[in-house]
Amino acid sequence: MAVYTDISDQELESLLADYDLGEAISFKGVAEGVENSNFLLETGTGRYFLTVYERRVRAEDLPFFLGLMRWLADHGYPCARPVTDRAGAELKQVRGKPCAIVEFLPGLSVRRPGVAHCRAAGEGLARLHVAAAGFPLSRPNDLGAAAWSPYFAPLAAAADGLKPGLAAVIAADLAHLAAAWPQGLPGGVIHADYFPDNVFFHHGAEFAGAIDFYFACDDALAYDIAIALNAWCFEPDGSFNITAARAMVAGYEAVRPLSAAERAALPVLAHGAAMRFFLTRLHDWGTTPAGALVRPKDPLEYERKLAVHRAAPDLVLFGAGV
Amino acid sequence: MAVYTDISDQELESLLADYDLGEAISFKGVAEGVENSNFLLETGTGRYFLTVYERRVRAEDLPFFLGLMRWLADHGYPCARPVTDRAGAELKQVRGKPCAIVEFLPGLSVRRPGVAHCRAAGEGLARLHVAAAGFPLSRPNDLGAAAWSPYFAPLAAAADGLKPGLAAVIAADLAHLAAAWPQGLPGGVIHADYFPDNVFFHHGAEFAGAIDFYFACDDALAYDIAIALNAWCFEPDGSFNITAARAMVAGYEAVRPLSAAERAALPVLAHGAAMRFFLTRLHDWGTTPAGALVRPKDPLEYERKLAVHRAAPDLVLFGAGV
Repeated sequence: MAVYTDISDQELESLLADYDLGEAISFKGVAEGVENSNFLLETGTGRYFLTVYERRVRAEDLPFFLGLMRWLADHGYPCARPVTDRAGAELKQVRGKPCAIVEFLPGLSVRRPGVAHCRAAGEGLARLHVAAAGFPLSRPNDLGAAAWSPYFAPLAAAADGLKPGLAAVIAADLAHLAAAWPQGLPGGVIHADYFPDNVFFHHGAEFAGAIDFYFACDDALAYDIAIALNAWCFEPDGSFNITAARAMVAGYEAVRPLSAAERAALPVLAHGAAMRFFLTRLHDWGTTPAGALVRPKDPLEYERKLAVHRAAPDLVLFGAGV
Repeated sequence: MAVYTDISDQELESLLADYDLGEAISFKGVAEGVENSNFLLETGTGRYFLTVYERRVRAEDLPFFLGLMRWLADHGYPCARPVTDRAGAELKQVRGKPCAIVEFLPGLSVRRPGVAHCRAAGEGLARLHVAAAGFPLSRPNDLGAAAWSPYFAPLAAAADGLKPGLAAVIAADLAHLAAAWPQGLPGGVIHADYFPDNVFFHHGAEFAGAIDFYFACDDALAYDIAIALNAWCFEPDGSFNITAARAMVAGYEAVRPLSAAERAALPVLAHGAAMRFFLTRLHDWGTTPAGALVRPKDPLEYERKLAVHRAAPDLVLFGAGV
């Protein structure tokens, strides 16, 4: 929630000179996205988003992300379509950083999703998986299950600093996840960051589209549901809302039914998804400088979700209506 | 440049329920304004800005500010017109804070204004003074010349901390300004914060309007020009750009010619205007907590402008074409 890169009027003008979008009528930095700088841009031809890619997004991954957004938009999925310049390029540079202009996607995200939002979000996630089928590029999930143990190794002290004894609990979790992690589930492109702030609705709880594909990668499709169950279906008091989870899975299955293997894997996938977000938050918690413009997200939120999955490994299955 | 107050979807929905604007289609926090939280709001009826008033803006001043914006818009001045709810209210509340919805004002601010921008900005400032004539409300300038000495008293140590010996220099400046401050100049409503980020252009350097009237007050109209000369006509290297200043004054006079007394007063007014911004920046520099989302503006920028006016009190007069 911050603008990192400032774009001057001259820099904007010279960027727009490469496009057929006309001159800028309005240009505002928006408080959206913590990984990139985002600007709402209006020209004579319409409204756009200019994203300047900052830390964490690797330049070599950008053709995958932008190609995916174009592919999804071409296949009827509501997401922001990248705009090409006169030479056909989607990926540009401004102030020495990679950037892209995409079409404006209307819609509202919700802070506290209700059951109806969870259902619509599940449907939107399945539509994404279906629309992405056949996308020719691939990107391994560098924050996937195989990465967690090496990622955690240097963070053990930080975990104990957060909560004494936590490092050993996490190590045991990691051993369990490594042993129980399902193989051979249907795979494809996943969003991998399908949180409420990345999903838009209109007219209340009608799915309007998804944004922020900058973690998208190849993995088990059901793992994307597991990420979403963690992100959408916990109450502020830390309890898992089985009604919301059931609605999300039902919404998903209205578009893409799950196999028995996918359904059976949901508990361990959800446990693992909680681990993935716990680990990156633990990392960011320790490394974000005190004066930074972005407040790191609390790793304890995901530590509590981990505890829920650890204590009641079948819980998510109830959400799945089994 | 930050969003202070987060507005949830429920809060937005219940606020909009009081208006005839339809439901929200899009809602984004924008990185604009350091004193308030600003959101770009789109509904079925158009685009708006929602401003939530934070620190420094006193609730009892809001009827003046909103009334002025309405008055200016009604008198042909391009600024954001406040929207009334069904009961006729402009000033509302959200999350316990005062807020208002205003119409969206298109346009681009410039980071590094050129001579043509300065001319157009001067014209826009004179149009503001002319359009505001007859506005029935009044608000004393609580950051005006009479306030500077008491404002500085507790900051003397901070000034010396910034630059050894500075407190004595500022005290001498304040004595000079108190003795030389002009009386009886034509007065009226001034913008009082007419900086490049508060002025919009279109098609390059055509004046498109002004925003952020939250320092507006009654004072000498020429003092508003003096604030603008400081804000627009210094080069990054600290030198005063006489060509830009001349263009700004000429643009102003194309709409509202200055009297001989106003013109003669410009040097001391410009010296005083530099003092006003130096003092508030000095204050904010010391009081902004280290982890704050907003970086305080460097008081040394205005300390250098003060030095320029002190060393060459006639400089601004050359800008005025005398």
